[in-house]
Amino acid sequence: MMRILGIDPGLRNMGWGVIEQDGPRLRHIANGICHSEGADLAVRLMSLYDQMSEVVRAYAPDVAAVEQTFVNKDGAGTLKLGQARAIALLVPAQAGLQVGEYAPNSVKKTVVGVGHADKRQVLHMVCLQLPGCKPAGPDAADALAIAICHAHHAGHGGAARLRRKIA
Amino acid sequence: MMRILGIDPGLRNMGWGVIEQDGPRLRHIANGICHSEGADLAVRLMSLYDQMSEVVRAYAPDVAAVEQTFVNKDGAGTLKLGQARAIALLVPAQAGLQVGEYAPNSVKKTVVGVGHADKRQVLHMVCLQLPGCKPAGPDAADALAIAICHAHHAGHGGAARLRRKIA
Repeated sequence: MMRILGIDPGLRNMGWGVIEQDGPRLRHIANGICHSEGADLAVRLMSLYDQMSEVVRAYAPDVAAVEQTFVNKDGAGTLKLGQARAIALLVPAQAGLQVGEYAPNSVKKTVVGVGHADKRQVLHMVCLQLPGCKPAGPDAADALAIAICHAHHAGHGGAARLRRKIA
Repeated sequence: MMRILGIDPGLRNMGWGVIEQDGPRLRHIANGICHSEGADLAVRLMSLYDQMSEVVRAYAPDVAAVEQTFVNKDGAGTLKLGQARAIALLVPAQAGLQVGEYAPNSVKKTVVGVGHADKRQVLHMVCLQLPGCKPAGPDAADALAIAICHAHHAGHGGAARLRRKIA
């Protein structure tokens, strides 16, 4: 049995989702969204750090998976995302968890079956694969999808090997 | 008397410098470079976090100043810098320090007198303004320049007001 924390990084909204994998069976444990607002970036990052630390403390996952950031042409947006992503990687690593990284297309391909699924499809398939789960929002659904993606790949040889394959 | 920690963020090399401001007088305390290498980004961020935390513990600054990142067209580079920058902002904030942010041109203008000075000029002026200081490298010299910039601006009304003016 393995508890997986999936994280969809964002500076304003950081989605997270915890699932439990028991052989081929997946179970929803919890999901949510960490928010940060305001002009002081250092304070926002600290707030995200505290909220994510609380998630790790509360649900004690065994492993974490973070969405690889899509680098686009909006430099300021990429920078913000990079800053949020650092928190998503740092907090589980400090708790001693191995942190897998998955490209958005790999996550969609695993969860929906195609690499270019839209948010509604992801939400639908997440709810289908995790009966009884009610995602707190699209970012939380994405985070659960990342956790599901990790569960599927980890079953076929472990996160470290996979990360190399996908990267 | 005020101790200022300047940080030049980078994922591979994160420069830092601590100076002491006593009225109009500046004194060099320490400087150095935190390194991180390897394929596992989470581990690298954790290593930078630990090294920067040790700097804050060892030199107990009163305030911190971080260089604002120059957003360029290299998306992958911007993302890396964003991730490193999150650590540079997070660590002092968690220690209870106010964190000022200064654009690279503001730093150069304050320390050298012109906004487009090259690295050698910055190094030269840093050493001139901080007698006896031997920067560990260009990133450490830049970090000291950021600390000097903060010292000058803080003398004219505090970091918070300044940050708004510069931003």
